[in-house]
Amino acid sequence: MQELTDKIINMERAALDRWGKGDPGGYLEIIAPDTSYFDPFTKNRIDGLSTFEEYLAPITGKIHIDHYEMISPRVQLYGDVAVMTFRLIDVAEEPDSGKTVTLGWNSTEIYRRIEATWKIVHSHWSYTKTE
Amino acid sequence: MQELTDKIINMERAALDRWGKGDPGGYLEIIAPDTSYFDPFTKNRIDGLSTFEEYLAPITGKIHIDHYEMISPRVQLYGDVAVMTFRLIDVAEEPDSGKTVTLGWNSTEIYRRIEATWKIVHSHWSYTKTE
Repeated sequence: MQELTDKIINMERAALDRWGKGDPGGYLEIIAPDTSYFDPFTKNRIDGLSTFEEYLAPITGKIHIDHYEMISPRVQLYGDVAVMTFRLIDVAEEPDSGKTVTLGWNSTEIYRRIEATWKIVHSHWSYTKTE
Repeated sequence: MQELTDKIINMERAALDRWGKGDPGGYLEIIAPDTSYFDPFTKNRIDGLSTFEEYLAPITGKIHIDHYEMISPRVQLYGDVAVMTFRLIDVAEEPDSGKTVTLGWNSTEIYRRIEATWKIVHSHWSYTKTE
């Protein structure tokens, strides 16, 4: 069970590492065709991998995160479904001003075992309350 | 499968109906002991039903929602786990000003079958982007 928990957390970290370099491929490769997705910029839920790919297309290559901290990752395992939750602190330098910007996220990633692999079937990203 | 989808949606509606009258009991009765929870007011994830009960205690009886609209409810069924997602529009009259206040939510509720019943093992509530 600890092994599986570590595996899921490492999958998420690997996707985040690429995301911070402007490459959404780390996520796109592990997202299931029937996925659902919420974030603070979506007016409606995004349903399906192809819709999600269209959503990401305009920002591909534009995201830059200098480093991140994954806080209190937790994986609740229920058979072939893993409920992964964590808070995320993103730190990035603004290209124009050189100012350091910090963003805090509440993150839910639902992984499902499909044959030998695990894929994301739902993501929910939102801002953490700030002081 | 449609029957199970309807059952999950109806459970959520029944809990919401009571919530809007200031009664969190509809949720507390269907939340599993190992639940995890995010909303826009939590600085950290809430883990466990008893911690969630403590969190709700101060607002019990204080919430009043005149009516709500559940938009595009979707249930992704994976064995004994149901990923329910929807947007929610809450409409309430402010007691002091009499002004009508509308709030939009992105909602994720993860249900898990435990013996004969379904219980919530994770909730994530966040604001929908406003125009």
